[in-house]
Amino acid sequence: MSEGERLDLVTGFSKLTKHEKLNWIVSQLDLRPGDEFRQVVEHFWLENPEKQALFDDFIENNLTNFLMPYGVAPNFKINDKLYCVPMVTEESSVVAAAAKAAKFWNSRGGFKAQVINQEKIGQVHFLYTEAKHKLMGLFPFLKTQLLDGVKDLTFNMQARGGGIKDLELIDKSNEIENYFQLKATFETCNAMGANFINTVLEKFAYILTQNVKVEVIMSILSNYTPNCVVKTWVECPISMLEDHQIDMGPKQFAQKFKLACDITKVDPHRAVTHNKGIFNGIDAVVMATGNDFRAVEACGHAYAARNGKYQGLTEVIIDNDQFIYSLEIPLAVGTVGGLTSLHPLAEASFNLLGRPDAPDLMKIISAVGLAQNFSAVKSLITSGIQRGHMKMHLLNILRTLGATEKEVTQAKNYFKYKSISYNDVYEFINSNRKLQ
Amino acid sequence: MSEGERLDLVTGFSKLTKHEKLNWIVSQLDLRPGDEFRQVVEHFWLENPEKQALFDDFIENNLTNFLMPYGVAPNFKINDKLYCVPMVTEESSVVAAAAKAAKFWNSRGGFKAQVINQEKIGQVHFLYTEAKHKLMGLFPFLKTQLLDGVKDLTFNMQARGGGIKDLELIDKSNEIENYFQLKATFETCNAMGANFINTVLEKFAYILTQNVKVEVIMSILSNYTPNCVVKTWVECPISMLEDHQIDMGPKQFAQKFKLACDITKVDPHRAVTHNKGIFNGIDAVVMATGNDFRAVEACGHAYAARNGKYQGLTEVIIDNDQFIYSLEIPLAVGTVGGLTSLHPLAEASFNLLGRPDAPDLMKIISAVGLAQNFSAVKSLITSGIQRGHMKMHLLNILRTLGATEKEVTQAKNYFKYKSISYNDVYEFINSNRKLQ
Repeated sequence: MSEGERLDLVTGFSKLTKHEKLNWIVSQLDLRPGDEFRQVVEHFWLENPEKQALFDDFIENNLTNFLMPYGVAPNFKINDKLYCVPMVTEESSVVAAAAKAAKFWNSRGGFKAQVINQEKIGQVHFLYTEAKHKLMGLFPFLKTQLLDGVKDLTFNMQARGGGIKDLELIDKSNEIENYFQLKATFETCNAMGANFINTVLEKFAYILTQNVKVEVIMSILSNYTPNCVVKTWVECPISMLEDHQIDMGPKQFAQKFKLACDITKVDPHRAVTHNKGIFNGIDAVVMATGNDFRAVEACGHAYAARNGKYQGLTEVIIDNDQFIYSLEIPLAVGTVGGLTSLHPLAEASFNLLGRPDAPDLMKIISAVGLAQNFSAVKSLITSGIQRGHMKMHLLNILRTLGATEKEVTQAKNYFKYKSISYNDVYEFINSNRKLQ
Repeated sequence: MSEGERLDLVTGFSKLTKHEKLNWIVSQLDLRPGDEFRQVVEHFWLENPEKQALFDDFIENNLTNFLMPYGVAPNFKINDKLYCVPMVTEESSVVAAAAKAAKFWNSRGGFKAQVINQEKIGQVHFLYTEAKHKLMGLFPFLKTQLLDGVKDLTFNMQARGGGIKDLELIDKSNEIENYFQLKATFETCNAMGANFINTVLEKFAYILTQNVKVEVIMSILSNYTPNCVVKTWVECPISMLEDHQIDMGPKQFAQKFKLACDITKVDPHRAVTHNKGIFNGIDAVVMATGNDFRAVEACGHAYAARNGKYQGLTEVIIDNDQFIYSLEIPLAVGTVGGLTSLHPLAEASFNLLGRPDAPDLMKIISAVGLAQNFSAVKSLITSGIQRGHMKMHLLNILRTLGATEKEVTQAKNYFKYKSISYNDVYEFINSNRKLQ
């Protein structure tokens, strides 16, 4: 922890140029890590300074580009259209798993997806200390004032078919003294809508204070959008689940698969991991399209806990001889605004997907989430998760160690039934090299 | 959606070279997006093919590198040590917010952090159809068999002070017929431990089937780690909260801040957004250190719902004149294994942080989460979130439009009180240019 102890306080850091920032950091680190740090940071700069400047301006104190693999999963049939889906992920097995599930379901009818609704929520939280019936009585008048007062902000969105769909006064004073909310419901078309909603809410808050004696605590959109939901499913006769990769009969597979999903309804320990797998797929597309994965994660997991217990998000129904497997998930994503238009690869992703609108993007993302879950559960209940996972991980480690083809073969044999860690592989390769 | 309709099925895609994959995709897209797609994809390749190959091997069907900004937040004082914290995020205000909160608390004692515990959980899920007292009676014998049987796998971890801490038989047959679990508790030292745990569990499952008539459903670690928790807090006398950026007295600020956090305990709509902000900070450090943000997100949000209602993760206590503000969060992260050793910038991050061990990394990550939340709530209850947020967003858009200094100034004035979207800014700049 020596460097941790030695760092100096720095003032005006954000005002320094990128080079000055880097110089300061290097001066703070011991000589060797300092030099290494500079090398790595500079190594990842784009050659073209103008193109680099675009990325430098995305955030404050930017030093360099963190590279995440950008891959594709082809053959996704969703509502009878084929997609080649862009995915950004660092986890080795994710794209492979999505692509496998896409292929599996392609010959079994593909994915079906349906957007249930597309409402976003925003809240003005405030305190009102007078008799609450006065506020209630005033609200119809207030509502008109509020809606009229934001017309200049909502005009464009309304022209596109969106805008404010509802505005309610919520009494929360039984939970916190004097606490009320303005709860607004929005339709934001192809935008995720955060900026639009926040701007409208701050105007609401201003109008509110002009008309009633309240203390506004804060005005902010909610990332919880339980009414911005897409449902995705696959289904086929159980007999069609037969596959050379599945080491049991289709009926047993269907039942075991259903059981694996049912377990996530009763055991949060299993549910969290199950849903994590779904988000492996979801986040990869969310990132590749320049959307905000923290918003999608927070919302999806809260949705998983909406019944008072954290549960898995996928569902299996076996109806006579039909296997029906579905995912229902809230996804507030956009195809315009934010980073979607600014990041060149987000733009490329939209081209690759055929310029989807927001509802189409919801369908694509949820299909990849379901596909990811299918591959994970299928692996778990058949060969186990480690076989595929570890193969990719071992190859990654061997690559960084500069292993020869012969060493790769030796390592594959040696680690066939062993736990794989960087150190273990390093020691194996090194001790073999010493022997020679 | 024309491209979506036109795509062909492709077989053996993963076996193609990167160039062949790209050629196939371009052949599928209409001419112009196809050419654009190729240009963008190739633009982000690293010049050095060997270094690019490292990234290409991380995932299947990798086409290029998705660039995420890698920045730093200096001046983080955590347990009296100063850190300059690496952060990977695409959201414009996140690093700035973390840096501001770090500076604010630096002169008020800094962040305190304490790892409460570090247990990881793994489960073997299985069905047992005979009388359950038989299984219960057998378990002490079984337990010895199981633990003995994985000694070769746990030897190294044990030498480092970790290994299996507990192994229980859990009866879940009242929830699902014949359903039981082996629940194993692990200590994985500086590794996140997924591979180690999964390898041990699969061996457990094998030994189990050799000794008892069971049907194993699956064997897998749990990403839910409610006993791998870190607590981080800041505190100071209320009078010290006085700050030129805060447009109210310190006492009112403290009370309003507490109220904003209390609201997240009663309103899930607010809680989700509140926690999303915490994860803005957490995920940025998780990514910069090569850890898995989906695992951290899934676990943290399930933890937020552990009491049956989804709630905010931070807490404010006002004790006499003392303001105490804390975050308690499970964080299963590693400083060895996985991508931490493979991604050159993850390695650089560890150098920048002074080579922390896993508990230290937990403390750093949670401090950034708390800092992020502090800045967000502080903005919300004072100037509102839009002011800072929109300033950065407007500058990003202006940059992509190649705006001159004069145009930047004009746009800043024009959009001072307006909602900002790419289209609006584009139209503003373009119509101004036409006038000239």
